[in-house]
Amino acid sequence: MEYRIEKDTMGEVKVPAHVYWGAQTERSVENFKIARDINQMPKPIIQAFAYLKKAAALANFELGVLPEEKCKAITTVCDEILAGQLDDQFPLVVWQTGSGTQSNMNVNEVIAYRAHVLKGGKLTDKEKFLHPNDDVNKSQSSNDTFPTAMHIAAYKMLIETTIPGITQLRDTLAEKSKAFMHVVKIGRTHFMDATPLTLGQEFSGYVAQLNHGLKAIQNSLAHLSELALGGTAVGTGINTPKGYDVLVAKKIAELTGLPFVTAANKFEALAAHDAIVEAHGALKTVAVSLMKIANDIRMLSSGPRSGIGEIHIPDNEPGSSIMPGKVNPTQCEALTMIAAQVLGNDVAINVGGATGHFELNVFKPMMIYNFLHSARLIGEGCVSFNEKCAVGIEPIEANIKKHVDNSLMLVTALNTKIGYYKAAEIAQKAHKEGTTLKEMAVKLGYVTPEQFDEWVVPANMVGL
Amino acid sequence: MEYRIEKDTMGEVKVPAHVYWGAQTERSVENFKIARDINQMPKPIIQAFAYLKKAAALANFELGVLPEEKCKAITTVCDEILAGQLDDQFPLVVWQTGSGTQSNMNVNEVIAYRAHVLKGGKLTDKEKFLHPNDDVNKSQSSNDTFPTAMHIAAYKMLIETTIPGITQLRDTLAEKSKAFMHVVKIGRTHFMDATPLTLGQEFSGYVAQLNHGLKAIQNSLAHLSELALGGTAVGTGINTPKGYDVLVAKKIAELTGLPFVTAANKFEALAAHDAIVEAHGALKTVAVSLMKIANDIRMLSSGPRSGIGEIHIPDNEPGSSIMPGKVNPTQCEALTMIAAQVLGNDVAINVGGATGHFELNVFKPMMIYNFLHSARLIGEGCVSFNEKCAVGIEPIEANIKKHVDNSLMLVTALNTKIGYYKAAEIAQKAHKEGTTLKEMAVKLGYVTPEQFDEWVVPANMVGL
Amino acid sequence: MEYRIEKDTMGEVKVPAHVYWGAQTERSVENFKIARDINQMPKPIIQAFAYLKKAAALANFELGVLPEEKCKAITTVCDEILAGQLDDQFPLVVWQTGSGTQSNMNVNEVIAYRAHVLKGGKLTDKEKFLHPNDDVNKSQSSNDTFPTAMHIAAYKMLIETTIPGITQLRDTLAEKSKAFMHVVKIGRTHFMDATPLTLGQEFSGYVAQLNHGLKAIQNSLAHLSELALGGTAVGTGINTPKGYDVLVAKKIAELTGLPFVTAANKFEALAAHDAIVEAHGALKTVAVSLMKIANDIRMLSSGPRSGIGEIHIPDNEPGSSIMPGKVNPTQCEALTMIAAQVLGNDVAINVGGATGHFELNVFKPMMIYNFLHSARLIGEGCVSFNEKCAVGIEPIEANIKKHVDNSLMLVTALNTKIGYYKAAEIAQKAHKEGTTLKEMAVKLGYVTPEQFDEWVVPANMVGL
Amino acid sequence: MEYRIEKDTMGEVKVPAHVYWGAQTERSVENFKIARDINQMPKPIIQAFAYLKKAAALANFELGVLPEEKCKAITTVCDEILAGQLDDQFPLVVWQTGSGTQSNMNVNEVIAYRAHVLKGGKLTDKEKFLHPNDDVNKSQSSNDTFPTAMHIAAYKMLIETTIPGITQLRDTLAEKSKAFMHVVKIGRTHFMDATPLTLGQEFSGYVAQLNHGLKAIQNSLAHLSELALGGTAVGTGINTPKGYDVLVAKKIAELTGLPFVTAANKFEALAAHDAIVEAHGALKTVAVSLMKIANDIRMLSSGPRSGIGEIHIPDNEPGSSIMPGKVNPTQCEALTMIAAQVLGNDVAINVGGATGHFELNVFKPMMIYNFLHSARLIGEGCVSFNEKCAVGIEPIEANIKKHVDNSLMLVTALNTKIGYYKAAEIAQKAHKEGTTLKEMAVKLGYVTPEQFDEWVVPANMVGL
Repeated sequence: MEYRIEKDTMGEVKVPAHVYWGAQTERSVENFKIARDINQMPKPIIQAFAYLKKAAALANFELGVLPEEKCKAITTVCDEILAGQLDDQFPLVVWQTGSGTQSNMNVNEVIAYRAHVLKGGKLTDKEKFLHPNDDVNKSQSSNDTFPTAMHIAAYKMLIETTIPGITQLRDTLAEKSKAFMHVVKIGRTHFMDATPLTLGQEFSGYVAQLNHGLKAIQNSLAHLSELALGGTAVGTGINTPKGYDVLVAKKIAELTGLPFVTAANKFEALAAHDAIVEAHGALKTVAVSLMKIANDIRMLSSGPRSGIGEIHIPDNEPGSSIMPGKVNPTQCEALTMIAAQVLGNDVAINVGGATGHFELNVFKPMMIYNFLHSARLIGEGCVSFNEKCAVGIEPIEANIKKHVDNSLMLVTALNTKIGYYKAAEIAQKAHKEGTTLKEMAVKLGYVTPEQFDEWVVPANMVGL
Repeated sequence: MEYRIEKDTMGEVKVPAHVYWGAQTERSVENFKIARDINQMPKPIIQAFAYLKKAAALANFELGVLPEEKCKAITTVCDEILAGQLDDQFPLVVWQTGSGTQSNMNVNEVIAYRAHVLKGGKLTDKEKFLHPNDDVNKSQSSNDTFPTAMHIAAYKMLIETTIPGITQLRDTLAEKSKAFMHVVKIGRTHFMDATPLTLGQEFSGYVAQLNHGLKAIQNSLAHLSELALGGTAVGTGINTPKGYDVLVAKKIAELTGLPFVTAANKFEALAAHDAIVEAHGALKTVAVSLMKIANDIRMLSSGPRSGIGEIHIPDNEPGSSIMPGKVNPTQCEALTMIAAQVLGNDVAINVGGATGHFELNVFKPMMIYNFLHSARLIGEGCVSFNEKCAVGIEPIEANIKKHVDNSLMLVTALNTKIGYYKAAEIAQKAHKEGTTLKEMAVKLGYVTPEQFDEWVVPANMVGL
Repeated sequence: MEYRIEKDTMGEVKVPAHVYWGAQTERSVENFKIARDINQMPKPIIQAFAYLKKAAALANFELGVLPEEKCKAITTVCDEILAGQLDDQFPLVVWQTGSGTQSNMNVNEVIAYRAHVLKGGKLTDKEKFLHPNDDVNKSQSSNDTFPTAMHIAAYKMLIETTIPGITQLRDTLAEKSKAFMHVVKIGRTHFMDATPLTLGQEFSGYVAQLNHGLKAIQNSLAHLSELALGGTAVGTGINTPKGYDVLVAKKIAELTGLPFVTAANKFEALAAHDAIVEAHGALKTVAVSLMKIANDIRMLSSGPRSGIGEIHIPDNEPGSSIMPGKVNPTQCEALTMIAAQVLGNDVAINVGGATGHFELNVFKPMMIYNFLHSARLIGEGCVSFNEKCAVGIEPIEANIKKHVDNSLMLVTALNTKIGYYKAAEIAQKAHKEGTTLKEMAVKLGYVTPEQFDEWVVPANMVGL
Repeated sequence: MEYRIEKDTMGEVKVPAHVYWGAQTERSVENFKIARDINQMPKPIIQAFAYLKKAAALANFELGVLPEEKCKAITTVCDEILAGQLDDQFPLVVWQTGSGTQSNMNVNEVIAYRAHVLKGGKLTDKEKFLHPNDDVNKSQSSNDTFPTAMHIAAYKMLIETTIPGITQLRDTLAEKSKAFMHVVKIGRTHFMDATPLTLGQEFSGYVAQLNHGLKAIQNSLAHLSELALGGTAVGTGINTPKGYDVLVAKKIAELTGLPFVTAANKFEALAAHDAIVEAHGALKTVAVSLMKIANDIRMLSSGPRSGIGEIHIPDNEPGSSIMPGKVNPTQCEALTMIAAQVLGNDVAINVGGATGHFELNVFKPMMIYNFLHSARLIGEGCVSFNEKCAVGIEPIEANIKKHVDNSLMLVTALNTKIGYYKAAEIAQKAHKEGTTLKEMAVKLGYVTPEQFDEWVVPANMVGL
């Protein structure tokens, strides 16, 4: 490979000749050869950096500390990054310094050198039009830019992927709930037969879960909307012009269309990532909900002949390489695997969040990597589950009717008529002798056949 | 031991002669000999049951399905339970049925039999004034009472213990932050010397963390305020009179003074405990904050001669059985152990919450056991840490001054004057040669001594 | 309450008049008012301390640094502690200093003062026969005694409770496996009907899981057998006589009957608790196994009329306060709750284990609290599950036969005769038209009725 | 894009014209659009499949159920896969069916169609030389191939990456321990000054941790060496020739050079992944160790002027974008982030392992994804940490000496001379008055200056 020589404060570094990055990025490439092909710094973080570098340039210009031409040079390259044109210029991995300094410098270098080339310069020029630290990083530190990028990326992912994905699934389940509202079926508690409810009622529980989950995510957005930018090195805002923090947050809000504000306390914003911990607490709650829902649906659709078989889900693919004709609840499986992953990611985030020291938490790349992973998995997982499974759910009415008709727990309707103890006697004896409830109830002399038919009506037991 | 014979729908059971509980409680005593001496059903759950049984009796009476005399008999015993007079009547453990049915029956039996005795009856009477199922449990099921007790107990613990504990610590830290606002000290990022800030600013970050944590807890209360009661067996409300669910929640709100309401969706309220999962997500966020804060404080107070030594914390006890005169940050240690425990409890709750099936989650006792544990540990841990440590924190000004005066990172103030690269050269050479920044800056000819003194003033670098 | 005055190096403390503990214990009672009634230092730790204090006295005597009379005085009280006679003398909680120093001093004080009384002295005597630090704690530090107590307690609990409990359950499942070895039943993969196996084969998988789990626990014992004692303050063994570490471990091995040895590296033994982390890794593996097994059993026994219903488990108690006659898989529920708890405890232990600093890990009480909790829950949970559930499991042959006869996945037997694609066609069409496999196979002309009967024999498909 | 038409048992599918995969792979591409660019099925799983498909072909041929020509065609393509020549033919993601069926079919299809092309056929030929199910998948099921691939990939990663990485770091630390064995330094317990030890002793603790960790990993290999192959659909081995399971495991052992054997119980091997859970328990133990070690090293190297500063670690890159001259312990940060990730991955694996049902665990892809992630991160993280940090660690003798000389805890050496209480008095007063121990000891009249100099010698306190 061809190289050129780049320099930073530690000396010279050989850098591939045609890349836009410089000495510090290259050092990190050399220093951190860990999971290179699978754990690149998430793209949404690079995008978030482009927003914030652009906003910083605009604010610096507006506050008189950056000349217009430099500002323009910076924002032009930021727009290229946002358009995805420089995706191959960010080679660093998650497993680097815990402040993400090297990714900040990667962005600084790419902006500075790409701008220089756009100005007609060469990568080998000793002096360049922009300086990565003095110009691109002006009024900034890795310590406030990286957490700012974390919040921008996290917030955007929640708004653009997670919430819409959950909402889409929620809407489908709500429709199903309505459509199935009068399909009376057996209830199951402890995995055992219980009193009846309707399939629509059962699905309404899922809808309620997701609605609460969406609310939990919404509740976490306020903390995420606070941006560290302006705190610079340790939260004091050293080397920033007056008014910069508020202005740069406003710029970011404008550029992203999201309600970002400057963090009320910059010390917290650098030293802790409780906003990430808290918001992922909402994501893990949703994961818990999805695990329950997907489990129910795979169990309700189990069979086709020796399971519960009360609903049908779409047949998407052959389910077995050895058992011909087998079809499996694969979307449920993907979704429950996602739920397990999110529960794991939560712990990684907790450990990282708890282990910051003094003025800086240095588990930043790991934390945002896991957060974005969860947020995306939930969002895309819900869409997949919705489109390939939920929309196609239909009741299997024959099985549903058979189950409810045979149920011994319909006896519960007799509690208020003959008391719990006599009702229990009927159910137990019917179970032992394999008879229907009615036969046993009459045989024991506790009710007449007419009374039984009047009192024990599944459709009257569901409270609709 | 003396016994009497009690009966339930399965037959006769020998029960200790003088206890108020009956057959079903005794069966559970026999069936679940697991961690008996260390994992009794938490007392706050028994108290919560007393509230809800009383509320149910009042609602049942008001709706005409329970005679006044029976209502009064029930509420009288509930008041005894609330007064702690029957604490030894609840022998069951957490590790029982996952619906908590046996604890519900324990309460039903104790209320019924104690009431009978209060009425002048004997425990050996075959017929008793109240029937555990038909009277005390009227319009109820374990499936809606236990989750209701969970929410009552959780909400109360948060309001009475957790939030006040955190608030107390937050207030002390806020006072300290104010008191120390002008104590300029060295900042530390990556555990390495960084630009200065004040001790008060550092503490303000802790205050911000706890404020956000309190807000996260507050955000979770709405979901917890929803009560399952009225859903009975599977959420349909079978065997409840019209209007009961709303009324009974209102009664509970009145009795507890907390804003409980009936759950909008009873199916969710029985089948999932996302409210617990979500609220514990807030608790784990606080745990993460407390780990950070307590770690910082133990590190800042480390020494006395070979550590950081920038603050003094109270000497509470001899710290070593072998090293005379040693004093340790024991409150920090208790608090960080608590934080670790809460992070573990969170996972137990997540697994339980994720593993419900169909109409009922059957990890209820385990989930609420962990929730109450965390909520109490955080609350009482914060009080202990506050009273025995935080209130006594004082700066050790000599060390603080020495550290800030020696710092090489004061060079950052020169960035905007001479650029990042020259500033770096000064710091690196001063480090290598062991000189002060000023000596090296002047020696390298980048600034005059006067400029250095004007530009590099720690107190001007903290943004106040 | 009546008090007496005790003194430690920090000064005077008022102590309840008649307790054997002294100043340092009382300071901890005052300083740590956290979860007093529910989180006392686990009894097995106190017992382990009694073993090690006795062993230390014997070794100190044998090595000539402790007079025989003092040695005897110490061992006498240790025997009282081991006999449970002084259980009420250890009032401290888990949430204290992270080194457990105060519990070590609690034991030192109780031994010293109780011995003094046994010698005829009074608690109010200024000079006592034994000094808590100089005599009882001779050649020891909290830093090596507490980890030693952790290993003793953990090892004993595994040997006495955990392994026997798992073994008991394993043996029952092995018997069931043998008894059910020829009960041909439908297999289920993805919760969907699959090719047949026998109920005994299914159970043999559970046996294999538990056997592997037992082996994993056994593998972890070697590390647990290493004792820190002799490392004293920081691992160097300061203030111990030559040969003490090896001798004291030998004494402990003799007293406990367990193969303890002195730790090869004392620095590791104080600064890290990887042995606890590692051994709990085995416990969490068993928890994962138990979750799977208990879930299977509750699902296999589900019904009675609308579930899978292939096995019967004992009816132990009425299952519902509202649904008469209901019986639930309550032992499965207790066991799965335990599994969830252990998974949570694992995380608490991991966080504690990971957060030690320099020469001492200070999450000791929290770590051993969780370890003992898990080890006991698994042991006692297995016994309960075994006695109240597993031993009573019986197949419900009618349901089993019905399921296997109806299965479409028997078609897999035709793969090697007519190929996967034609076999799939048979299964799919039979499913769509609701016919038997045989009817469809013949109708499609792929096999003759005779071939079908010869080739598709469930009992021939199970590999026995 | 150009397409061709492929068929499976469900019908026709449009597949990109020139890829080797077929209908089932393409269905999965369409059905699971989740985290496509970041969560592809790990390459080591594809490689493991190549080993097992080759082994199966060889065993099938040897047992007379596959013609030699077909066998050869299969093994040829497997070798291409192992050589990395077909890497772009495996487009599926982790989030698919939980059995990995679609990845098994992806491999089956690629082998069948690529072989057909190698034979001179065209991808558009209706009949192909090999059938994905009947030939390539012969004597196999996804249900036994995927777990077999899991064990092969996991075992290989541990042997090739994890163990060598840890060993390399362990060796460096052992060298450092030896080199620093006589550098007497202050000990720290509770982050507070304690009695001295040597830097080499401190490092020996890290070596012991990693040695124990390596042993824990080794202990877990036996379970991982058991292969499910031969169990086919549900563990019974349906559609396999006699002797196949043993033979195919032998073939895999030969091809990989690793001691694989057929699983003693195939039901366990399909239905549970306790071997993965157990082995990851060892990995999480190592993660805990690495967190401790890396934390210690960053704290010991903290400063340069206001920290502990007892060791120097290599300066690898500029540490701050705003603070000139700053250098940070970035390798420690990467390693501790990795440790946090592994602790999270552990929980994901536990949840997946615990949630299998009946004859099949369907969290397979998620479990192996996390396992391989952890195993690789630890291996590569240790190498990076070793090469860029550990090898360059050097003591900063001046600081070390200053700390040990000032220490008040040297007083511990006086315990056995003057008793704990008088020693404590010396230390406390020296601390209060800011004097040296010697001055205070003499002033209090407890020792003569000569005695002090004889008794209190740090180098004599380290037990060497």
